Amino acid sequence: MTLPLDPAENLAALIRCPSVTPAEGGALTALANMLKPLGFSIERPVFSESGTPDIENLYARLSGDGPHLMFAGHTDVVPPGDESAWKHPPFSATIDNGEIYGRGAVDMKGGIACFAAAVARYSAEHGPFKGSISFLITGDEEGPAINGTVKLLEWAKARGERWDAAIVGEPTNPERLGDMIKIGRRGSVSGTIVVHGVQGHAAYPHLAENPVRGLVTLVEGLLDPLLDEGTQDFQPSNLEVTTIDVGNPATNVIPAKATASFNIRFNDSWSEETIMAEIHNRLDRAAATTRLRPGRETPINYELLWRDRPSPVFLTRDDKLIGTLSASIEAVTGRKPQLSTSGGTSDARFIKDYCPVVEFGLVGQTMHMVDERAALSDLEMLTRIYQRFLADFFA
Amino acid sequence: MTLPLDPAENLAALIRCPSVTPAEGGALTALANMLKPLGFSIERPVFSESGTPDIENLYARLSGDGPHLMFAGHTDVVPPGDESAWKHPPFSATIDNGEIYGRGAVDMKGGIACFAAAVARYSAEHGPFKGSISFLITGDEEGPAINGTVKLLEWAKARGERWDAAIVGEPTNPERLGDMIKIGRRGSVSGTIVVHGVQGHAAYPHLAENPVRGLVTLVEGLLDPLLDEGTQDFQPSNLEVTTIDVGNPATNVIPAKATASFNIRFNDSWSEETIMAEIHNRLDRAAATTRLRPGRETPINYELLWRDRPSPVFLTRDDKLIGTLSASIEAVTGRKPQLSTSGGTSDARFIKDYCPVVEFGLVGQTMHMVDERAALSDLEMLTRIYQRFLADFFA
Ligand SMILES: [Zn+2]
Ligand SMILES: [Zn+2]
Repeated sequence: MTLPLDPAENLAALIRCPSVTPAEGGALTALANMLKPLGFSIERPVFSESGTPDIENLYARLSGDGPHLMFAGHTDVVPPGDESAWKHPPFSATIDNGEIYGRGAVDMKGGIACFAAAVARYSAEHGPFKGSISFLITGDEEGPAINGTVKLLEWAKARGERWDAAIVGEPTNPERLGDMIKIGRRGSVSGTIVVHGVQGHAAYPHLAENPVRGLVTLVEGLLDPLLDEGTQDFQPSNLEVTTIDVGNPATNVIPAKATASFNIRFNDSWSEETIMAEIHNRLDRAAATTRLRPGRETPINYELLWRDRPSPVFLTRDDKLIGTLSASIEAVTGRKPQLSTSGGTSDARFIKDYCPVVEFGLVGQTMHMVDERAALSDLEMLTRIYQRFLADFFA
Repeated sequence: MTLPLDPAENLAALIRCPSVTPAEGGALTALANMLKPLGFSIERPVFSESGTPDIENLYARLSGDGPHLMFAGHTDVVPPGDESAWKHPPFSATIDNGEIYGRGAVDMKGGIACFAAAVARYSAEHGPFKGSISFLITGDEEGPAINGTVKLLEWAKARGERWDAAIVGEPTNPERLGDMIKIGRRGSVSGTIVVHGVQGHAAYPHLAENPVRGLVTLVEGLLDPLLDEGTQDFQPSNLEVTTIDVGNPATNVIPAKATASFNIRFNDSWSEETIMAEIHNRLDRAAATTRLRPGRETPINYELLWRDRPSPVFLTRDDKLIGTLSASIEAVTGRKPQLSTSGGTSDARFIKDYCPVVEFGLVGQTMHMVDERAALSDLEMLTRIYQRFLADFFA
């Protein structure tokens, strides 16, 4: 049996599987074929939930000595969009001028390909690998994320699995390999405000109550002042009003209702509970003013509806995990990675409840774009970084 | 030939014509049949414009001595809505408990019926009427108002018609006959603001520019401070934001564009030009702030589009016209009418460019509602008021 020693070959095999969420597309089978020769036992649990497509997942386990390391990620990819706009077909894995093209090249089949190669090389050098290691790979990260990492973690835990540390292979580097490790993520909550007014004719405003005035007052109260100025490890929390909608086509009519939705990315000076309480307080305070509604003494009549599932904020404080990974990166690239908590949410927010988790992978510049691609030199360097990390982590 | 001496009979004949805009429904013919026995010559010009229905209008002229008085109004009515909700069918003119029911009873077939009766009674008392008088009646007041009063005035002027004063028979009384003459109207302008931002991911706000922040800042600038505190003859000017729309369904996306529309009712401390300049100034001033956009130094990127046709503000200052009408009202009802400029726009805004114009008609409480109706006693009193006015005006 051939060992998956070459990350570019591994990646090409994965890219050729058109695994656009929720399709497995052969990608998990291709990964299983790489890992079996290394001694991994493979399980392929399928999770279901009414209203969502069934999703295939993969848990590969190598039982050995020492601590248990999880490598986590996903083989599903976002759609390629207009295929004719691509320089090379998005599932062809064409190599052109030192780069391999394809949907998922950096997000994140590339990370998986490199980690498999790192394990293979380590085994080849040291004989059969003695570490305790698992691949926790979902096919539902780019979709609704209901039948993916969350259930896979629960499933593995129920079978007695415990982990000491996890690396997620998402593309974390903004410009060059070695720029950035993610050691945490801001939390996220979303809500919708509905303001109820009294419909009427624009010429008789005293007989109506314009909900737009109330809504603008509430939105101001949400946006001002700033939530915080950031913490030692995190950017300032931020609130964006993502939409305001009234839908009144008549210029001479005061509408009955106005709505606004917002999304907050919050840092570790808040919890989900405290940020939600702050929003309630700001809205209640703003609702009591009459600044844009002079002569109206009643508070603004509003409802606040929380939307989606809130994401918690988290920060990993494991010095051994972070230090070992940083040192590996610096040894291979010559660059000391920034320890960052910026950007959107990732599946690391679920893993953090099981063990310390960090994220490090390829350069993210082309992710989700036309002509997504990874430099062959980056694949080689990332493989060496992961290999070095394995050596030091299990030393 | 019978003279149209009874306002209730006149009104019943008009109500039985289902003249929902743009249908003539027989109403102008019914009116012509009332006026011919009084010596009026009748013209029925039809006006057209592409994209709108053809509209029938009526100009009835009695040539005589003295000044020329115009009575202006409309025979078209708004739809009856749910006919089964009416106590009596909306085009039946049923009399019940001293009230005549029907769509248009007060807005404003009732005013026309009373004015025709007033001219008939005056003629019957004094012999053939010697005044110079015209009925300028459109079938397009409740609709787009494109093929109605504006064109009818131009048409008559082109034929050499000139007027010394006009009464519009719209229902002007809030509660009781004699409450209120309208001697002017606020102006009206409407606009739409479009704010252009930069679309992006809610987790990376520094790479995007949220147009909602800009729009809320501009709306605040529009609403605050108040435009004015009113004038001797007018209520304060008022601005209503009638809609805000973004239409972004994604909670994690910062949208590219946000729009708001507004309507202003302005008094005689402004002209169309000065109010529009004030809005431009407020928006430019607000666009320069960064209050809700800290760290953004560029002004908010916005466009302002004026919508519809602006209506001018006007105030009639003809002491003879107003004084004569007030005295007639007081003599018949015992009430001294308030001289008001409140409420929405009316066709008086077009007539004011030709001669001094005031508005006085029935009580407006049921206009545009189910069970629109007029008290027979009000019809009789309004007829007497108009008759007394004719006597004094032509004295
Ligand atoms: Zn990803
Ligand atoms: Zn009317």
